[in-house]
Amino acid sequence: MPQARFTLHGIALSGPTYKVGLMLALCGERFAYRHVDLREGTHKTPQFLALNRYGQVPALVDGDLRLCQSGAILQYLSETLGKFGGDDTLARQRNREWLFWDADRFSPNVYRSRAIARGFFKAEPPTAAVYREGAEVAFKVLDDSLAGGKFLTGAAPTIADIACYGVAVFADEGGFKLADWPNVAAWAGRVAALPGVKPPYELLPMADIP
Amino acid sequence: MPQARFTLHGIALSGPTYKVGLMLALCGERFAYRHVDLREGTHKTPQFLALNRYGQVPALVDGDLRLCQSGAILQYLSETLGKFGGDDTLARQRNREWLFWDADRFSPNVYRSRAIARGFFKAEPPTAAVYREGAEVAFKVLDDSLAGGKFLTGAAPTIADIACYGVAVFADEGGFKLADWPNVAAWAGRVAALPGVKPPYELLPMADIP
Repeated sequence: MPQARFTLHGIALSGPTYKVGLMLALCGERFAYRHVDLREGTHKTPQFLALNRYGQVPALVDGDLRLCQSGAILQYLSETLGKFGGDDTLARQRNREWLFWDADRFSPNVYRSRAIARGFFKAEPPTAAVYREGAEVAFKVLDDSLAGGKFLTGAAPTIADIACYGVAVFADEGGFKLADWPNVAAWAGRVAALPGVKPPYELLPMADIP
Repeated sequence: MPQARFTLHGIALSGPTYKVGLMLALCGERFAYRHVDLREGTHKTPQFLALNRYGQVPALVDGDLRLCQSGAILQYLSETLGKFGGDDTLARQRNREWLFWDADRFSPNVYRSRAIARGFFKAEPPTAAVYREGAEVAFKVLDDSLAGGKFLTGAAPTIADIACYGVAVFADEGGFKLADWPNVAAWAGRVAALPGVKPPYELLPMADIP
């Protein structure tokens, strides 16, 4: 079997790592995978900082290119692979509007709520409430936006759906019930049914994939 | 004088609105400006939601296109105007990595700290501390990254600098001193000296510009 083009560095517990792995899986791209042990501080070593100057997971290596920030990686992959990027200027713009909305309003509130629920992040109750309320507002925005269509920007899935699905899939770990937002629940079911999609802990192990 | 190509909708108090106005000014693009009165709830009216489905400022109108999310707008403008976007794939990628880092780590922590300091957002002290500490970590990342270069991604300013400058410029309102991060302070001085740059409340008034 030929060597994989891409090497993904991350951890299965990380939503942003999952988003990139999911994109590669949906594109039918086999990839090598390097488990980054956050507890051991691997993401702060000089070796990892050479891959991702922010010291965050994930990082993606494509030949000589070292890529980071899941939203930016999704944009890059949609361009270099010609998939899930939308067909024209308007579609590309709508996609990236969702990517930035996700980075601003959806991911941080849901992931932080999950980190608090799982004990990865210590927060006083009023702080936890700020994140929880932010997440609930974001789920409502998503639900309203999905009232009219199968996917976020039209009839076909794009990187906007991949990014937001990579958040929604962790909702239960944050103490949210997707069923509270019926359009979101139905859309998540449609994304989950796409060829190549696996749940987070099936897609990525807590170990390397050669 | 011919009608301006672009119409920016926003409020001078908004960092993301400033980022877009700054980009247009740096590109030498005259623009019409519509003041959006957040206290009056103008951003939640059907008219505004038709411009920006998220009900947030800013929104930018370019002919038939209605654009939102400042990071996505900066990407769009760099492409359509051919300015501040970087010269090749790697430069474009580095730019968007900074845009997403900003959306995730820099803007929310600095803007929220500023909103708390100015009384726009009520938060308990432990919550305020989470945002303050997040902002301080982000300023440190920015400072370290600027140790080696004049601008974030090289010798010339790009949308990465414009986005992050649109945060740093509000540091003092959040109770931060840029002088605590000397590389950031020097870089901010370089951005401020670029042709077309004005401080937030000089660039945009609390009223329409025809």
